[in-house]
Amino acid sequence: MTTTRLTPTDAPRGLAGVIVAETTVSDVRGAEGFYQYRDRSAIELAETGSFEDAWQLLVTGQDATDASRPGFAARVADATIRRRGDLDPVVDAVSTATPEVLAGLAAAWPLLGARRGIRPLYDLDEDERLDDAIALAAATPMLVGALWRRGRGERELPVLEGRGVVANYLRQVTGLVPDEATESALTAYLIAVMDHGFNASTFTARVIASTGADVAACLVGALGALTGPLHGGAPSRALDGLDAVGADDRIDSWIRGELAAGRRLMGFGHAVYRTADPRAELMKRVALRTGGPRVELALRFQQSAERLLADAKPGRELHANVEFWAALVMEQCGIPRSMFTPTFAVARTIGWTAHILEQAHDPKIIRPSSRYVGPAVRVAAA
Amino acid sequence: MTTTRLTPTDAPRGLAGVIVAETTVSDVRGAEGFYQYRDRSAIELAETGSFEDAWQLLVTGQDATDASRPGFAARVADATIRRRGDLDPVVDAVSTATPEVLAGLAAAWPLLGARRGIRPLYDLDEDERLDDAIALAAATPMLVGALWRRGRGERELPVLEGRGVVANYLRQVTGLVPDEATESALTAYLIAVMDHGFNASTFTARVIASTGADVAACLVGALGALTGPLHGGAPSRALDGLDAVGADDRIDSWIRGELAAGRRLMGFGHAVYRTADPRAELMKRVALRTGGPRVELALRFQQSAERLLADAKPGRELHANVEFWAALVMEQCGIPRSMFTPTFAVARTIGWTAHILEQAHDPKIIRPSSRYVGPAVRVAAA
Repeated sequence: MTTTRLTPTDAPRGLAGVIVAETTVSDVRGAEGFYQYRDRSAIELAETGSFEDAWQLLVTGQDATDASRPGFAARVADATIRRRGDLDPVVDAVSTATPEVLAGLAAAWPLLGARRGIRPLYDLDEDERLDDAIALAAATPMLVGALWRRGRGERELPVLEGRGVVANYLRQVTGLVPDEATESALTAYLIAVMDHGFNASTFTARVIASTGADVAACLVGALGALTGPLHGGAPSRALDGLDAVGADDRIDSWIRGELAAGRRLMGFGHAVYRTADPRAELMKRVALRTGGPRVELALRFQQSAERLLADAKPGRELHANVEFWAALVMEQCGIPRSMFTPTFAVARTIGWTAHILEQAHDPKIIRPSSRYVGPAVRVAAA
Repeated sequence: MTTTRLTPTDAPRGLAGVIVAETTVSDVRGAEGFYQYRDRSAIELAETGSFEDAWQLLVTGQDATDASRPGFAARVADATIRRRGDLDPVVDAVSTATPEVLAGLAAAWPLLGARRGIRPLYDLDEDERLDDAIALAAATPMLVGALWRRGRGERELPVLEGRGVVANYLRQVTGLVPDEATESALTAYLIAVMDHGFNASTFTARVIASTGADVAACLVGALGALTGPLHGGAPSRALDGLDAVGADDRIDSWIRGELAAGRRLMGFGHAVYRTADPRAELMKRVALRTGGPRVELALRFQQSAERLLADAKPGRELHANVEFWAALVMEQCGIPRSMFTPTFAVARTIGWTAHILEQAHDPKIIRPSSRYVGPAVRVAAA
């Protein structure tokens, strides 16, 4: 007989440093400034791979090769085609209730799941789970693009046949047929943020998955955690500084003012990386490819900020993080600021589904304990 | 400098026995067969209190007295009235997409939140958070009742003015104006399951709350975890045995057959309680008040099951759990089986909101770690 009362173990605040699972999905080595998806460098994938290849690797564990790609593509196509008839009614319903894309996506997933008879993880075999995971991840960029357009009173644009997830997503969000440079820039961003260890949203997805709930239920919980201000990865705030300084000569004085007022400089510093964030370095390279006056300003802002932060908070190693340069890249791609977080969610959904599938291999509920510290029981008042 | 790589601590599987928070919301003392809400016996509250009183105690920590009740009632009324105009459009939208109540509720919360401009927890003061929590908990029985009726092609029935949450909920679900015995029986069930320590759904709500996300985001995640087959508390499966045995003389042979086949007997055993589950005892008393042939059958089933389980699994202390007798009580109240889990969710929403509000006092993200056990990074294939 084991009860939680007999074996209390106090966890560090926020479960920091507590290893709750073994994983083969990904690894983040903060001290080295390196992270990987399965057995591949995530940055290398982001620089060279397609969205579909990284997706295949993360959710199936199988490297995308000439031999394996067609099978995965067929699976995605099958899931997409079978579900397409349900997307319109869901988008119709949700968009009458709100123009907000994130709330709409949170509402759309369970509705789509209910319409397609998506089932609890533990009632499915591995193949069926993968189908559900692929179907919902495939639907996500379509849902986000459609909800964005509907929220502005517009209709979805026709699918760009023969082009992939990223081009089609850009098509809906920007209204334009994207050129290859834009598609490639957004692809790098999306792959770079598909997964990043056990952040709170991924952990949420795994806790829900541990109960055996369906993939949609896991995703909705993860999205909820992602919308929290402490989660990070929602980069629109990183542009606040660039907007505020306006001209070059105000950079130093504006940053000094923020630091003196005790405000955090958005876009600098990360919980895990103490060296430069490799995603920030990648996004910077991508932004520099296109260049322009805004990127010049960002470069000067970064230099000033890192210098002033080193003076103000010595030893803290506060570098430009992924949010800072990712915001620039998304701006270059024509993505409106209100769509930065939904775009992040489109990418992270891939990582969430990979973790959900992995968690389902270990059918043990995640159920920690608490310690009651309130007053003792008293007799009821009148 | 602290990184998760430098201080790895392996947690027990499922975080079992790991204390992740101090709480004043509730306590479960499994070995004693006792649990409490704040400083009151939960069972005593369920037997004597109103839904509204238990709600007030759990979310505000304030005992419901003649002096304090009007203030809480005014708050609930205010939250309800201010939000009522948003319920109809949300119910309209969601019910066009699915007749399923749980998926509909999961979709309705974020839509309602978006329409009312519900904000991240960390952007609000304590009073504003409480308003959001009360507004969503107040909306929940209305949403569930309305979605149930719409799913069957019916419209909501007029509100029973002057009667409380439970009577109005029963009105929508059963179509009848409930008598006091029925209202009191369902009240006992709902209060008894409003909260129960750190189950997976409550933990999910707190993980999402720890990111600072809004109350709707936390609730949706919690509901997702509740729908998982391992979560427990969804009592419709507990009636499978009663349905199967049909007549008395088949009880022993049916149970023996199930145990011989290695199947779990639904409605017996609990992760925390080794003595009798106090909620089961309460629900049994409530069921016996009304009585009838179905209750007689249940009594004989319980006796047989506990005897045969003691023989088959000695030392395991497998008693009838809350699901078994709660299922009988809900049946007596006229709640259809498909509405057992939504009804449980209506009650548990109260506990979730109490935990969300408590978690928001400690603005530290819950972000554990994982250990990568996959293959080392290799050079990319062609």
